Amino acid sequence: MKDFIFHNPTKIVFGENSSDKIGFFAKNMGKKALLVYGQNSIKKSGLYDKVIADLKANDIGFVEHGGIKSNPTLTHAREGVLKVQENNIDFIIAIGGGSVIDEGKAIAASAAMGVDVWSFFTQEVAIDKALPILAVLTMPATGTEMNGNMVITNTETSDKFGLGNSCLYPQVSILDPILTHSIPLKTTVHSAVDVVSHLTESYFNNAGGWTILQERYVEGMVKTVIDATSRILQNSQDSDARSTFMWAATMGWNGLNVAGIGAFSMPCHTLEHPVSALYDISHGAGLSILTPQWMMMELENKEAKFARFAYEVFGVSLPSQKEQAIAGVEALKSWYKEIGAPLTFADAGILNPDVAKLTELTLKASKLKNMKEFNDSYVSKIFSTSI
Amino acid sequence: MKDFIFHNPTKIVFGENSSDKIGFFAKNMGKKALLVYGQNSIKKSGLYDKVIADLKANDIGFVEHGGIKSNPTLTHAREGVLKVQENNIDFIIAIGGGSVIDEGKAIAASAAMGVDVWSFFTQEVAIDKALPILAVLTMPATGTEMNGNMVITNTETSDKFGLGNSCLYPQVSILDPILTHSIPLKTTVHSAVDVVSHLTESYFNNAGGWTILQERYVEGMVKTVIDATSRILQNSQDSDARSTFMWAATMGWNGLNVAGIGAFSMPCHTLEHPVSALYDISHGAGLSILTPQWMMMELENKEAKFARFAYEVFGVSLPSQKEQAIAGVEALKSWYKEIGAPLTFADAGILNPDVAKLTELTLKASKLKNMKEFNDSYVSKIFSTSI
Repeated sequence: MKDFIFHNPTKIVFGENSSDKIGFFAKNMGKKALLVYGQNSIKKSGLYDKVIADLKANDIGFVEHGGIKSNPTLTHAREGVLKVQENNIDFIIAIGGGSVIDEGKAIAASAAMGVDVWSFFTQEVAIDKALPILAVLTMPATGTEMNGNMVITNTETSDKFGLGNSCLYPQVSILDPILTHSIPLKTTVHSAVDVVSHLTESYFNNAGGWTILQERYVEGMVKTVIDATSRILQNSQDSDARSTFMWAATMGWNGLNVAGIGAFSMPCHTLEHPVSALYDISHGAGLSILTPQWMMMELENKEAKFARFAYEVFGVSLPSQKEQAIAGVEALKSWYKEIGAPLTFADAGILNPDVAKLTELTLKASKLKNMKEFNDSYVSKIFSTSI
Repeated sequence: MKDFIFHNPTKIVFGENSSDKIGFFAKNMGKKALLVYGQNSIKKSGLYDKVIADLKANDIGFVEHGGIKSNPTLTHAREGVLKVQENNIDFIIAIGGGSVIDEGKAIAASAAMGVDVWSFFTQEVAIDKALPILAVLTMPATGTEMNGNMVITNTETSDKFGLGNSCLYPQVSILDPILTHSIPLKTTVHSAVDVVSHLTESYFNNAGGWTILQERYVEGMVKTVIDATSRILQNSQDSDARSTFMWAATMGWNGLNVAGIGAFSMPCHTLEHPVSALYDISHGAGLSILTPQWMMMELENKEAKFARFAYEVFGVSLPSQKEQAIAGVEALKSWYKEIGAPLTFADAGILNPDVAKLTELTLKASKLKNMKEFNDSYVSKIFSTSI
C-alpha cells in the first residue's frame, strides 16, 4: 500500500423520490442558481416542472442553461460562465448525467476564478476555488456526482481532456434511482461498461504493491455491476437493480478504489476519449471496443493480474496463468457481447475509423499524462485491431 | 436497497510518518488545543515529544489531558470538559486508539454545548455542535477516526453506552501505520476481532433486501482483515500488512458497509459492552467469546446469511444450507482460535461471570436500542453458554 489523502466531502442523498428535496438542499447553498441541464429528457419526464416549482416554493432564483450534449463542449461551458457573470449567480444546480454535471463543474470553477475554462485543461491555471454545486444525477456512469473530476471537449481541436481537483466535489448530490428507470437499455449497457472500466483501470494499472483491500473492493463492485445490469436487462423497472447500479457507479469512482494504490494510469480511457470526440458514439461503447485489444497488448506485462481478474470476477480457472489471463479477456468480451456492447468499430457503426488521427490525438493526451508506454506503433496497433 | 444519506467529511491523511504533519494540520483548526491521550505509550514511543515540539514550532497552545484508559470513563471526560472551559480551548487533538478519540469526541460535544456528557447517552440532549477534532490514530480497531460514533462508560452505574452523531466526525484524521508496528500482537488480535465484528453485525442484522453491493464490500474487508492479521502475526513489522489492517479497520466502520442496508442492529456489541464494562478484558476479547454463541442462537433465523458468509469468507461449501451455516460458525471459531482470541469467559480469565448482572445490563442497553429479540432467557442463555 501507498500513502494517500482521502477527503470526499460530498453529501449523498440517496433514495427513491429524493429528487423531491432539491429545493430543501438548494436553499442552504445560495439565493440564485444557474440551472444546468441537457436535452429534452428532463422536460419529457416531468422532472423539469417539478424542479422549477420546488425552486420557486423555496424562493430560489435561477437562470437556465440547458442544451448540454453528451461530451460537453468548451463553447457551451463558456456560455454558462457568461450567464453566471451577468446574473449574479451564487451556485450551480446541475441536473443530468455525467456530461451535465461535468459542465456544471467547469462553469463553477471558471466563473469563481474569472479565468477561461480551457486554461484548466491545458494545465496553465490550477483550480483553487469553485461555486458550490448541487448535483441531481439522472444517469449513473461517470461517478462525477461524488468526485472532483470533469471532462470537457474542445470541438475546435477535437481534444477531449479530463482533470481532477478537490474544489470540484459537489456539495450535495441527490441520487434518485427512480429517475434511472426510464434510461434506455442501450445507454445503461454503455454506462455499465464505463463503470467497470473505472474500476479495472486502477486495478490493472498501479504499482501499489500489496493492495488486496482495494483489489477485493474492485472485484466486488465489478461483480455487482454485472449482476445489476443483468437484472435491469430483464426488467428495466427493477428497483433494487437500478438502485444498486446507481450506487455501484458512484462507489466505483469516488476515490476509494484508488486510495492506497499509489500512482495509476487510465490507458483505456486515454485511448477512448479521442474516439467519442471524433465519432458520435458513447464513451462506454468506445471502451468496450478498445479494452479487450488493450488487454491483449498488455498480456505479457499484466498476466498475473489478468489471471486473478479472470478467477475472481468470472470464476475462470485454468492450468496455466497465461491461458487463464486470456480466458479472462474472453470472459469480459463475452459479457460485453451478452449485454449488447460493441466489440469492434464496425459493431458501433464506424466503418472506416481514422486510425492515424485517433493515434495522433491519443498521443497528444497521453503526453500530458506522462504515459510512457504509449507510442505510435503501440497506439495505432490497438486502434487497428479494433476495426 | 434502502434510502440513505451518506456524508463523511473526515479528511484522512494516511501514510508512514504522516504523524510528522500534526502541527501542519492543527494550525488550520485553532490556536489552542486540548491534547487528549492515554497512558504512557505515546511517551515511551517518542510520539509525545515529537508532537509537543511540532505544536510549539507551529505556535499552537495546548493543555494536556492524558491518562485515558481503555473503556474511557464519564468521570475522566468530565474533567476534560472542565479544562476546555477553564482554558479557552478551540479544538481537540486526540492521540491514541478508539478510547482516546471517543473521549475526545465526548469532550468536544459537551464543552461546545455546555451540557453534561452523560445527557447525550441517556438521550436527554441531542448533540448539535462540537469543537473541531484532529485525531491521530495509534491503534486501529473501532473506526472512530472516520465516523461520528463514541462509547463512554459510566463506572458508577456500570453502563457502557454508545451513540452516533454527524457533529462527531473528526475534521482530520492522521493514520500513520508506523505507529502501529509496536502494538502488542495480543492487542492486534483483539482489534481484528472487533473490526470483523463491525462488518458482520451490519451484514447479519439488516432488512435491506437485495444488498449484494454491501455484502461483497463486507466479505472483501473481512477476508482482508484475516489476511493482514495472519501476516502481522508472522511479522509484526510487516509494513503492507500493518497499513492494510489500519485502512481496513477504518473502511470497516466509516458508514459504507451500512449505506443502503436500512435499519440494522448490533447484537454482539450490545452483549459485549457490559462484559468489558464489568471485567478487565478488551472489547475484542468479549466479542470473540460471545459472537459464536450468538450465531448458534440465531442459526434458524439467519441460516441462509450464515451459509453465504461461510462460503464467501471461508470457502466452506456443504450439501445442506444448515450444515454450511454451522460450519461457518465453526470456521469463525477456528480463526479466533488460530489468532489467539478467547472462545470462552474461562479463556479470558473470567472464571465466574455474573450472568445475572450481565443480563440485566444488556437488557437495559438493548431497551434504549429497541432490540425486541433480547429478553431475559435469550440473553442469559448466550452468556451461560459462553462460560
